[in-house]
Amino acid sequence: MVRVGIVGGTGYTGVELLRLLANHPEVSVEVITSRSEEGVRVADMFPNLRGHYDLAFTVPDIERLAACDVVFFATPHGVAMSMAPELVARGVRIIDLGADFRIKDVPLWEKWYKLEHTCPDLVEKAVYGLPEVNREAIAGAQLVACAGCYPTATQLGYLPLLEQGLVDHRRLIADCKSGVSGAGRGASVGTLLCETSESMKAYGASGHRHLPEIRQGLGNAAGRPVGLTFVPHLTPMIRGIHATLYSVLKDPVDPGLQQLFEERFANEPFVDVMPAGSHPETRSVKGSNYCRISVHRPQDDDTVVVLSVIDNLVKGASGQAVQVMNIMFGLKETAGLNVVGLMP
Amino acid sequence: MVRVGIVGGTGYTGVELLRLLANHPEVSVEVITSRSEEGVRVADMFPNLRGHYDLAFTVPDIERLAACDVVFFATPHGVAMSMAPELVARGVRIIDLGADFRIKDVPLWEKWYKLEHTCPDLVEKAVYGLPEVNREAIAGAQLVACAGCYPTATQLGYLPLLEQGLVDHRRLIADCKSGVSGAGRGASVGTLLCETSESMKAYGASGHRHLPEIRQGLGNAAGRPVGLTFVPHLTPMIRGIHATLYSVLKDPVDPGLQQLFEERFANEPFVDVMPAGSHPETRSVKGSNYCRISVHRPQDDDTVVVLSVIDNLVKGASGQAVQVMNIMFGLKETAGLNVVGLMP
Amino acid sequence: MVRVGIVGGTGYTGVELLRLLANHPEVSVEVITSRSEEGVRVADMFPNLRGHYDLAFTVPDIERLAACDVVFFATPHGVAMSMAPELVARGVRIIDLGADFRIKDVPLWEKWYKLEHTCPDLVEKAVYGLPEVNREAIAGAQLVACAGCYPTATQLGYLPLLEQGLVDHRRLIADCKSGVSGAGRGASVGTLLCETSESMKAYGASGHRHLPEIRQGLGNAAGRPVGLTFVPHLTPMIRGIHATLYSVLKDPVDPGLQQLFEERFANEPFVDVMPAGSHPETRSVKGSNYCRISVHRPQDDDTVVVLSVIDNLVKGASGQAVQVMNIMFGLKETAGLNVVGLMP
Amino acid sequence: MVRVGIVGGTGYTGVELLRLLANHPEVSVEVITSRSEEGVRVADMFPNLRGHYDLAFTVPDIERLAACDVVFFATPHGVAMSMAPELVARGVRIIDLGADFRIKDVPLWEKWYKLEHTCPDLVEKAVYGLPEVNREAIAGAQLVACAGCYPTATQLGYLPLLEQGLVDHRRLIADCKSGVSGAGRGASVGTLLCETSESMKAYGASGHRHLPEIRQGLGNAAGRPVGLTFVPHLTPMIRGIHATLYSVLKDPVDPGLQQLFEERFANEPFVDVMPAGSHPETRSVKGSNYCRISVHRPQDDDTVVVLSVIDNLVKGASGQAVQVMNIMFGLKETAGLNVVGLMP
Repeated sequence: MVRVGIVGGTGYTGVELLRLLANHPEVSVEVITSRSEEGVRVADMFPNLRGHYDLAFTVPDIERLAACDVVFFATPHGVAMSMAPELVARGVRIIDLGADFRIKDVPLWEKWYKLEHTCPDLVEKAVYGLPEVNREAIAGAQLVACAGCYPTATQLGYLPLLEQGLVDHRRLIADCKSGVSGAGRGASVGTLLCETSESMKAYGASGHRHLPEIRQGLGNAAGRPVGLTFVPHLTPMIRGIHATLYSVLKDPVDPGLQQLFEERFANEPFVDVMPAGSHPETRSVKGSNYCRISVHRPQDDDTVVVLSVIDNLVKGASGQAVQVMNIMFGLKETAGLNVVGLMP
Repeated sequence: MVRVGIVGGTGYTGVELLRLLANHPEVSVEVITSRSEEGVRVADMFPNLRGHYDLAFTVPDIERLAACDVVFFATPHGVAMSMAPELVARGVRIIDLGADFRIKDVPLWEKWYKLEHTCPDLVEKAVYGLPEVNREAIAGAQLVACAGCYPTATQLGYLPLLEQGLVDHRRLIADCKSGVSGAGRGASVGTLLCETSESMKAYGASGHRHLPEIRQGLGNAAGRPVGLTFVPHLTPMIRGIHATLYSVLKDPVDPGLQQLFEERFANEPFVDVMPAGSHPETRSVKGSNYCRISVHRPQDDDTVVVLSVIDNLVKGASGQAVQVMNIMFGLKETAGLNVVGLMP
Repeated sequence: MVRVGIVGGTGYTGVELLRLLANHPEVSVEVITSRSEEGVRVADMFPNLRGHYDLAFTVPDIERLAACDVVFFATPHGVAMSMAPELVARGVRIIDLGADFRIKDVPLWEKWYKLEHTCPDLVEKAVYGLPEVNREAIAGAQLVACAGCYPTATQLGYLPLLEQGLVDHRRLIADCKSGVSGAGRGASVGTLLCETSESMKAYGASGHRHLPEIRQGLGNAAGRPVGLTFVPHLTPMIRGIHATLYSVLKDPVDPGLQQLFEERFANEPFVDVMPAGSHPETRSVKGSNYCRISVHRPQDDDTVVVLSVIDNLVKGASGQAVQVMNIMFGLKETAGLNVVGLMP
Repeated sequence: MVRVGIVGGTGYTGVELLRLLANHPEVSVEVITSRSEEGVRVADMFPNLRGHYDLAFTVPDIERLAACDVVFFATPHGVAMSMAPELVARGVRIIDLGADFRIKDVPLWEKWYKLEHTCPDLVEKAVYGLPEVNREAIAGAQLVACAGCYPTATQLGYLPLLEQGLVDHRRLIADCKSGVSGAGRGASVGTLLCETSESMKAYGASGHRHLPEIRQGLGNAAGRPVGLTFVPHLTPMIRGIHATLYSVLKDPVDPGLQQLFEERFANEPFVDVMPAGSHPETRSVKGSNYCRISVHRPQDDDTVVVLSVIDNLVKGASGQAVQVMNIMFGLKETAGLNVVGLMP
């Protein structure tokens, strides 16, 4: 059994980790931390866990975390980098669901996150946690920085096109729509039901923290820097990301897009290329770790439209983290992740 | 492996059965029928099932169904009674999620369902499928009529009070709220998003088909006929039933209500009595087979308020059916049902 | 033109007042206060008001408020009572949307609101703002305490029955469902979209602040104290209250309930008794000042079920306040309130 | 008073016309037709209209319609063209909310709508009903083809850029999100609450009927044919369209985008250019006739992002039709349209 610790268990990615790990056959959750909820049983805070966990929140403590095989950070940025060095030094493996170790260019990270990075050396060592790109490196990593939610949906949709150099890498447009859970469980007026339901809006149109992360990943796939316009939208639903990805074919002759996508992801357990002409719905992945993708070429023109959907809390966060853990510990990659999407 | 057939797989209870059975370790779904969708793969109709099923819908056929160990009917009333006699004759066990065999008083059934019953003898043989009341009879049954959604939430909430004779059985009021999926997947103006979201309404205030079923169950618990006012409400959400159950204590001395409920359900794997003072949320059981209950006695007066929540598609339909199947076939009662509620 | 001041304009009842007053032909909003948003234009905070108001928030100031003919308090309890005495002394008329002056029994108020009342003498003078009960007194009042949201829906539904003494006043059950806007615009985890949508729950089952207010109003109608069980529920929608009201007829002979209700409200511009057999939907009053009511007597038994719906922000708050103002200033009672409900 | 007839009053644009016209000071609705609902009072079908209309549906009858000054068609395509010639011949003015007369290229219309056009001559005469482009022509028109919902949001957002020739007209990308009411009030599985809430999906990615209409309008603005990729998305809300419009500046020097937009719409009563940096929310126009627009230039790069929101049933349909009527009859353009958006 892999002994698991979770730092920061009171947010949505924390409770989602607990949901997935409750049915994982090879894992035992040993520690879950929260400064504010010390002593509270996780099942009292999240009643869906009643009958599945007896665990209570404890104050973060290096000793107890160091006794784990792996520690998940389900925390806002800045927390993981404050504890990672000591845990790494003690041989614990780390899976960070936050942003601390995702961006290799530390000054760029500092610019977007408005924070000094306290362990740039670990950034260098960290492996970017997108299994469809980095499976081998993840297997041997001590510290994995899981891909963010928008970055996961966007990269998986663009990868086949950029890896093959089929589209103009200077003019990528990612129009992304996210459910409200992407904004977290903190009390704020902006994410009240009365402020977000029955409405749609863009936000961060002039710049969002996931932009540099997506650019980094797409640049790696393309083998050179890419030009990307990324506009996220807040959508009146709890879960789900829908990425609508536009790019322009360099050569108007059809490169066999459907086949290209099917082949690229043929061996991926959690990427499902839909039949030609499909429009994936976010609800088809609600609660599950799948990314569903379809490719369109409207009016046979030179613009390619890729539709890519995930559950932001699963493949966009906690499910991806479990998938990464499975790879790191040599477990079956799908262990604990055989959840069927909840539909309707 | 239990060989399973499903009649009527295109509605919400059908796809929900498939979701639950996909992860059931002892079951193989052999047949799923639909007249209108013959030849369509279930995963093409319900994309959440992609990667879990290769099965396609076939026209209902007695031979193929008779080769199963058990056949689920996830059909509107009237269908099960038309096929049950032949399947029963051939030794197949039947679990009906519909209403055909729930009410022992056949003329009463005919009055509410406006249909002549074609096999009243099977009604007599049928066991009412509410495990918390009938576990032993279910184990030996050939034909089980699963309890309906409102009846499940309502009976589980009232049982401890009526079995002990603590409340006035003549004045029961069940104010119930259901998500829209309770109305099924048929095309109708009344259940469009634009007609049901951002609104709340009662319906069937003067009489709803679940009334005689609930009365029958409560009457059995009380040992005599009960007086019940039952008002269902349509609530702007997909899943969930919230039953708010009012009754009047015969004796104003506190009978230890919290303890009574805890003891009554101490050995029930899917009934969770919440701590005193709690208010269960339907989302805590979203996708799971739990019924969560709490008991209140406002201002220490003589009115008892029981709050009882289920997912209408799980404990109120398909999950209950799987639980019943587990009991009938001597499997672990929780097999396939260890799903944690999806929260948020 | 009636010169209007609004204290506390940043909550939902404040912006709703502004929405309604924007089209009121006889009113000019002169002042709107907010300590936290001083200097911010109301239309910058609430973009729906762009093009309708140039007004900016100012810090509460007695001089400026005293220059108004009427001041609305759209504030949490405790604020109105701190400013009312001085404004009253200066001859300003006051309409309080909050709870400070609703309950005549001051110690009872202090018990439920956990606050010492600082001007009990004004409580005595205050007129309870439910026009369907108190129209004449409102016309001459200097200080009106508008009825709360649950109390409005509940009282209007019970009034005909209690005024005529037709039902057992000791056993009233009000099962009420409210949209989330009833909880206000404050940042809190409990009213986030991710915590409230796709879920239904009761709250305050053991006691809610509107209980004593409702009891007072129903007691006045019945001419003696009533016994009431009141259970509010949080419903996944923005606006709307649905009250389902149970009571028991003293005499089983049908007293002509439909006619009774129609006659009681025949001259009420904002109470609409629906045809027999109807089920009013909250969306039919979304944005409008109507209360829609229907009466049922299930199975012709002795239990009466009244269904009463309002928009909690309109007839349950700001619309009622405007109706009260119209009465106080001798304007047409429907002025500014001819809004048709937004459906769908 | 302008005597109004409405053909096809049972859909969402029909009831929305009635809502807006109920408070229009210069209009009297004389006839409303429906074959299926003959004799039913509109207020019985749409209870939000109770107290505002006594009118009942009648079977379409040319005589009665010909007695009106203007007839609105709130019908699916194909209906208006079957009745328009006779009404036009009798001097009645026509406002079509449907698609029959929007596209000047009749064979193109026939290709997308899969129907033979029965009065191409009227197409030629018809004026395209987008006041911000065609005000003068509308004033003198006998037949106006109101702009569609997506076309309105999209054209208003692109107009300033294309009219000034600032962006590459060959590479326009309109990523549009619509509430479910855009799909109408017909019974269909695809628009059930259980199929559309808690989900986001694209549809018609390979081609949607509004594409040729948008292209025609943008081509007119640009003075030459444009290249447009248009991807509509179904969003889990009742009302609202959010258009996110991408284009590439020809000259990287900032042309003063904010000022350009403000000046273009300075005299438009229903187009509201938001302050620089804003993100308009669809809820800010819920129930109102505004189009709210903001312009972004992310990272000062050469891609321009315009955000444009409307209520699809108001500025995208019935409100626009009323605005058009006001212009045609020389009334105040805002008459009946001073509705403040419903927020929250």
